[in-house]
Amino acid sequence: MKIEGIEMIFEKIVSEGLAHNSYVIGSAGTAAVIDPRRDCDIYEDYAVREDVAITHIFETHRNEDYVIGSLELAARTGAQIYHGSHMAFSYGNPVTHGDTFSVGNLELKVLETPGHTEESISIAVTDRELGDEVYMVFTGDALFAGDVGRTDFFGKAETPRVAGALYDSIFRTLIPLGDGVVVCPAHGAGSVCGARLTEHEFTTIGYEKKLNPALQKTREEFITHKMNEILYHPPYFKKMELYNKEGAPPLNGLPYSPPLNPQEVDTRMKEHAQVLDVRNPASFSGGHIPGSYNIWKEGVPLFAGWVLTYDDPIIIVDEDTRTITDILRYLVRIGYDSIGGHLAGGFASWYMSGRPINTISTWSVHDLRAVLDTDLFLLDVRERRSWDYDGFITGAHHIYVGEVANRLKDIPQEEHVVIYCDSGFKTGVAASILKKNGYECTTVLGGMAAWKKAGYRVENPLES
Amino acid sequence: MKIEGIEMIFEKIVSEGLAHNSYVIGSAGTAAVIDPRRDCDIYEDYAVREDVAITHIFETHRNEDYVIGSLELAARTGAQIYHGSHMAFSYGNPVTHGDTFSVGNLELKVLETPGHTEESISIAVTDRELGDEVYMVFTGDALFAGDVGRTDFFGKAETPRVAGALYDSIFRTLIPLGDGVVVCPAHGAGSVCGARLTEHEFTTIGYEKKLNPALQKTREEFITHKMNEILYHPPYFKKMELYNKEGAPPLNGLPYSPPLNPQEVDTRMKEHAQVLDVRNPASFSGGHIPGSYNIWKEGVPLFAGWVLTYDDPIIIVDEDTRTITDILRYLVRIGYDSIGGHLAGGFASWYMSGRPINTISTWSVHDLRAVLDTDLFLLDVRERRSWDYDGFITGAHHIYVGEVANRLKDIPQEEHVVIYCDSGFKTGVAASILKKNGYECTTVLGGMAAWKKAGYRVENPLES
Amino acid sequence: MKIEGIEMIFEKIVSEGLAHNSYVIGSAGTAAVIDPRRDCDIYEDYAVREDVAITHIFETHRNEDYVIGSLELAARTGAQIYHGSHMAFSYGNPVTHGDTFSVGNLELKVLETPGHTEESISIAVTDRELGDEVYMVFTGDALFAGDVGRTDFFGKAETPRVAGALYDSIFRTLIPLGDGVVVCPAHGAGSVCGARLTEHEFTTIGYEKKLNPALQKTREEFITHKMNEILYHPPYFKKMELYNKEGAPPLNGLPYSPPLNPQEVDTRMKEHAQVLDVRNPASFSGGHIPGSYNIWKEGVPLFAGWVLTYDDPIIIVDEDTRTITDILRYLVRIGYDSIGGHLAGGFASWYMSGRPINTISTWSVHDLRAVLDTDLFLLDVRERRSWDYDGFITGAHHIYVGEVANRLKDIPQEEHVVIYCDSGFKTGVAASILKKNGYECTTVLGGMAAWKKAGYRVENPLES
Amino acid sequence: MKIEGIEMIFEKIVSEGLAHNSYVIGSAGTAAVIDPRRDCDIYEDYAVREDVAITHIFETHRNEDYVIGSLELAARTGAQIYHGSHMAFSYGNPVTHGDTFSVGNLELKVLETPGHTEESISIAVTDRELGDEVYMVFTGDALFAGDVGRTDFFGKAETPRVAGALYDSIFRTLIPLGDGVVVCPAHGAGSVCGARLTEHEFTTIGYEKKLNPALQKTREEFITHKMNEILYHPPYFKKMELYNKEGAPPLNGLPYSPPLNPQEVDTRMKEHAQVLDVRNPASFSGGHIPGSYNIWKEGVPLFAGWVLTYDDPIIIVDEDTRTITDILRYLVRIGYDSIGGHLAGGFASWYMSGRPINTISTWSVHDLRAVLDTDLFLLDVRERRSWDYDGFITGAHHIYVGEVANRLKDIPQEEHVVIYCDSGFKTGVAASILKKNGYECTTVLGGMAAWKKAGYRVENPLES
Repeated sequence: MKIEGIEMIFEKIVSEGLAHNSYVIGSAGTAAVIDPRRDCDIYEDYAVREDVAITHIFETHRNEDYVIGSLELAARTGAQIYHGSHMAFSYGNPVTHGDTFSVGNLELKVLETPGHTEESISIAVTDRELGDEVYMVFTGDALFAGDVGRTDFFGKAETPRVAGALYDSIFRTLIPLGDGVVVCPAHGAGSVCGARLTEHEFTTIGYEKKLNPALQKTREEFITHKMNEILYHPPYFKKMELYNKEGAPPLNGLPYSPPLNPQEVDTRMKEHAQVLDVRNPASFSGGHIPGSYNIWKEGVPLFAGWVLTYDDPIIIVDEDTRTITDILRYLVRIGYDSIGGHLAGGFASWYMSGRPINTISTWSVHDLRAVLDTDLFLLDVRERRSWDYDGFITGAHHIYVGEVANRLKDIPQEEHVVIYCDSGFKTGVAASILKKNGYECTTVLGGMAAWKKAGYRVENPLES
Repeated sequence: MKIEGIEMIFEKIVSEGLAHNSYVIGSAGTAAVIDPRRDCDIYEDYAVREDVAITHIFETHRNEDYVIGSLELAARTGAQIYHGSHMAFSYGNPVTHGDTFSVGNLELKVLETPGHTEESISIAVTDRELGDEVYMVFTGDALFAGDVGRTDFFGKAETPRVAGALYDSIFRTLIPLGDGVVVCPAHGAGSVCGARLTEHEFTTIGYEKKLNPALQKTREEFITHKMNEILYHPPYFKKMELYNKEGAPPLNGLPYSPPLNPQEVDTRMKEHAQVLDVRNPASFSGGHIPGSYNIWKEGVPLFAGWVLTYDDPIIIVDEDTRTITDILRYLVRIGYDSIGGHLAGGFASWYMSGRPINTISTWSVHDLRAVLDTDLFLLDVRERRSWDYDGFITGAHHIYVGEVANRLKDIPQEEHVVIYCDSGFKTGVAASILKKNGYECTTVLGGMAAWKKAGYRVENPLES
Repeated sequence: MKIEGIEMIFEKIVSEGLAHNSYVIGSAGTAAVIDPRRDCDIYEDYAVREDVAITHIFETHRNEDYVIGSLELAARTGAQIYHGSHMAFSYGNPVTHGDTFSVGNLELKVLETPGHTEESISIAVTDRELGDEVYMVFTGDALFAGDVGRTDFFGKAETPRVAGALYDSIFRTLIPLGDGVVVCPAHGAGSVCGARLTEHEFTTIGYEKKLNPALQKTREEFITHKMNEILYHPPYFKKMELYNKEGAPPLNGLPYSPPLNPQEVDTRMKEHAQVLDVRNPASFSGGHIPGSYNIWKEGVPLFAGWVLTYDDPIIIVDEDTRTITDILRYLVRIGYDSIGGHLAGGFASWYMSGRPINTISTWSVHDLRAVLDTDLFLLDVRERRSWDYDGFITGAHHIYVGEVANRLKDIPQEEHVVIYCDSGFKTGVAASILKKNGYECTTVLGGMAAWKKAGYRVENPLES
Repeated sequence: MKIEGIEMIFEKIVSEGLAHNSYVIGSAGTAAVIDPRRDCDIYEDYAVREDVAITHIFETHRNEDYVIGSLELAARTGAQIYHGSHMAFSYGNPVTHGDTFSVGNLELKVLETPGHTEESISIAVTDRELGDEVYMVFTGDALFAGDVGRTDFFGKAETPRVAGALYDSIFRTLIPLGDGVVVCPAHGAGSVCGARLTEHEFTTIGYEKKLNPALQKTREEFITHKMNEILYHPPYFKKMELYNKEGAPPLNGLPYSPPLNPQEVDTRMKEHAQVLDVRNPASFSGGHIPGSYNIWKEGVPLFAGWVLTYDDPIIIVDEDTRTITDILRYLVRIGYDSIGGHLAGGFASWYMSGRPINTISTWSVHDLRAVLDTDLFLLDVRERRSWDYDGFITGAHHIYVGEVANRLKDIPQEEHVVIYCDSGFKTGVAASILKKNGYECTTVLGGMAAWKKAGYRVENPLES
């Protein structure tokens, strides 16, 4: 029982992997959710605990990297959905610059901040109990801690225009709100929606003005910088864009994942089920189901969209069932609703059933260093900018992990392929793709991080 | 990882209030659920944790006191539903005496045990790994710890026949299984499905044979005993019987309960919403919303079906939101799916909004004793058998709590009505009904339990 | 597995009731805790989950309203304790202005900010990965959201000096950090450590500069304002001050609370145990153990220190055991380690045992209004400033709830005492004290909040 | 609030790995704990939830496979400890045959059932509310589901005497209790305290009489059977026996496990810390810290006592921190209180720091079959009885996993050692010991289970 005064409630809800932030903000018994995720039970649980009714849902923009949960949450709570007016959504209510909404004593004001997408909005919050000053602003993918939103979705030709629009959104709309305003962006570090987000739990206009590299540039420098930015478009983005414009199919709770015995997994694989092994790369290397993909758990939200199709059911393999529910959440957040099940008993039940296994050899960086001059195909699967800015190992070939499956012709099947990345995790993904395609390969555990710590020589692309 | 052998899994799941037992039993990766409840997430969570697939659902009989969750659980898991063949169910598969099912290494064998209902079955479990002996038996409402199922559903005329059938089911089918067989009944102490269930977590054929009073009788004595048994038929039984024969509407998770402010509660009450205050009777007496019903939390499964209609939405009032989810579970288990919401901020928010309150005076048994000879209408709302067998307080009138609403004409409005029950909880229910109907009343906290502990005189109905 | 980069971790941990904020901040595997509470398992659990070692503990000042958990947490983790140098603590390490500490990539810099206490420090955080700008500042009891720390601990004569020091700490040390700096104070709304704290989850220098009323004043106005501020000193502050200077006795987990039956409670009350009934005031009014104190759950941290002694064991009474652990936490946080137990079965077991009960009548504000002109002693137990600034009900006498026990001589025993407060909760505390002392009294549910909502007349002390 | 009658409470608490069962049984607000484990918070939490006071603690015998938690639990709750009188314990109260104790309405009667140890007791429970028949019996290590307790602790010479005593305990004391009595043993399947325990959740005298192989024998056959039984004595038993006779040091909550970075782990290993890698064997094979031991999580309670010393601190390595608390529980249950910490960031942080790794090659049974005739040293590390009764692979040498470290001289260092067990888990333990000692080895994933499923030839020791 809160007996005195009216408490403002505020909660940041992070979806790991996607590094997606949604927010609940409320006052006096009502609350708004900003950019809800699709498995939206978390908002309802929070609302019951805090004893508030969710009445408003805001989408800062049409997202491309995950399925937004607005319809799901609205169906449960009866809340109204609002989004920018410069896109023809099949659901919800369009809002325009200056529209205001009352949520208890809070005033939420819509600010159009185009650039990342045409219809992007930010939402400025004022606490009317205290005064007219803006207290916080939800900036969606316009302004992050340490970076700004990507502007490459409309093609190279359009980038100058939309990058300029983003610059103006930031400098003419957001920064004038005042240095003391708390900034709540839609993504944190690790997101694919920007290049160099920092790890701060939250930030302020004043702090970003001083330290955000993108905000230290002139408009021209800013546009040039955005023109040169290299970011990837995982193929699942198309599905997300469609879902988030038209409305995704209703989820109604997580899908049911039946436990399958090895015989059933075997049979379903023959019927084209996709096996997703979510163990760490060292574990996968020590033994795995032939034909399975490896994406470590926390990597599923980021890499499943590169590796899995939407057409065939997914079978999950782990050590045990402890994290199956987490994996299901990761998958439905990016639209993978077709769950075939999971291997009961974990990977051990596979080999205990007398079935064949595949293995991949693992090397430390010292093992790699010792044979660097021998005959091998060294494959670097990091992002291009890591290669460009952080250097690479002598003799390496670069293919981004997400593109390995489509560039097998550039990887000689007859050679011993040795793969590295930043740390060894993306390497596991790449190795599983190669192994599935008949390659013999070795993963370097520790990757560039370990290579540098060991003090070994790094090639500088600018010099070479 | 369980590396050696094949573990049998077994779990008893109790739904409080209804004292309903459901069970999960399994082996080698598969499991059966016996008599699932409607909010069936608990079985699925258990199955994930134990890494088994739910493949079979058995209904020991068409239940009348709660909505069975078979369809709900089957929709999630794809399991098959089985029930007795002597009723025309609209779903599931009929089974007959001697049918056997394999669940891993377990053999589940159907035994027809009519009596409580015509199509009642028991299910005997044999562990084939160990031998041919029956290990445990699910007895539904045929045999309980300390009692047997009620046989009054077919009317007085049919009771001799069905009571005889039940006697035969027990003595010819269940007892011959052997003294060492573990008995898993569908209800525990507190259920309305039998008169005198004991509190044992589980029991055995041997133990019941020796100590269950009903099993000490001859066939004739048994039938006479059942003829004389007085049990109540709450009006909601009709709905349950219909639902459990035809199939209840899908639930798909708990209903959403919007938090309502006092103004909203006020408005909806005028639109015929039913307000259910689940606080304890002393709390309700200290202040409540005029027109609200009082059923203490754990009493909701047993008494909501006497008090609430299925036509109007229900608004829940408690101190806070801690137990709202529990109350929702209690309500949907007996088919109350129309949830209007709950009072945000708990009862305190009602009076803090400046709205009127009602109060009820409370007495200890000493307070009652002091004025017993004065002019008051002393109302005993316990079950009839408590009055008959445990005695009553001098001058009391008996009306069972469930029948108070229909017998107001027997309670003089102009008198001071003082109510007691076993302990004070059912008294709260009765008092709220009377108060809602304009009576002035007093509740005796502690009821007969306290009266006896205080050493006060108890009338013996056999003497008077 | 976080595979890329080094994540900053940050968590605000609120101890309800006390409205005390502690914080964990860390980077690169190490973390500091600011102002830990005494039941410090929460920090250790968080550290395991985030996989960081707690290496530093900072006390922003010698607290007077709760027992600090530094020694407790240090004993578990081996972390070092740091506090200001202008007090002779019996433990830990003194730090002075400008001292810096590395916690991963973060730099924590000590800023002396005296005023609330002589040795108060703030801690400015810079993220060295990003640049030299201060990111956030832990301000202890110097600067809150919406208010500043109290300055009345040294007596009226010293207030001008220490209020001036606080003004200087804020204007010369904190504000110059920059508008964009995030402010993390040691208390939120509801704390006794300031008068008018607002409800914001966090704030910034820039926002406070504009909207914090105390920061709109000149130095002279500020000192005058602090001279006129009326705040209470609960008697338990003395114990806290001693504990926090000398080091509190080790807790080693929560005390064991044995469940007691009514007979045992009866016996222990005769041996001077203090019974604390934590139900809401309406529930307490409907029936309670004669001689028990009533403090509603969330009020325990704030009012136990006014009501309970440290000499006698405490017996807790509630409806059930759901929140017993919460109550134990509340009690040990303010040094009440002598737990006698709790009433098993809740209050109902008391009256079911046939023991006497006390009741208190409850009124709505309408009930009060109807008899306002009759002969009663209307008692207002709110804080003095509520009386002064928000007005009162005609005819009321003011005694703050915390002072009722010491001012019984000012309350006529022969009159009907009708009590109100802001909402009805503090009224419960006061009523239980009066009832224990033989008064007949009535509590007004809803208090001033309901009175105003009902539109009834409020006296303005400035006019009267 | 349970308003009617007095509920019997009963809970079986399983400590995984050890397959140790403890029990809470109670009635009317009081409860007894049978054979509590050392991390005894679980009993206290249960007692608070069920609102009972723990007043009695019974030890069925002086355990040798885990540290009993009686003193720990008694220190918290004030309960009295009881154990058999035929051993000179340094704490608690001796009881003899026929002693009875009241726990609410239950009567607990001591039955001396020597054999497994001299002072072993069973405890028969009668519910006095219902009658004089025994309801359940706690049989300690005398009678299990499917087996009886081991009788080899006193040496070969004494076995006939103690086996005879056990036979008499079962046939003269336990079986006469009656077929319908529920049997609650101190261990379930997987325990080292018996040879062939079955997986039943609970059992009855009647069921065991029919299906327990040991109970089908004459006294002579029984003694001969026990004489021939081969069971292992892990070295940690000595410590347990001492602790459980003299009283173990107080635990006071789980030890603190500091997260350590790779540098710290490196340093501590040089100071003789023991590194325990709890990942599955395939994961360990894919890469591990040189010099670390591998025991998969659930195997820690069973195999740590063979592998780890009590002298040096233990450092835990896993994928992440999710199960660190579980591992700590496993370790303290067998007396390993000296925790050095755990590798922060899991195994990945080790290789990302640029440190060397070891790997072990893994084979499926098909890989083994293909080279079975080549030059390798095939090592079978299963229990001797598995070799004897279930057969072995042609050419294998047998050394039990627990004895590998002491029999290195029997394993040729110059050969390629290929290891198998039942499934592959114990193989991981053995491989880690060999690798640490400089061997090159290969683990066969799936072991004998997979070998048989694949249909490959098994040698019969009786034939060869």
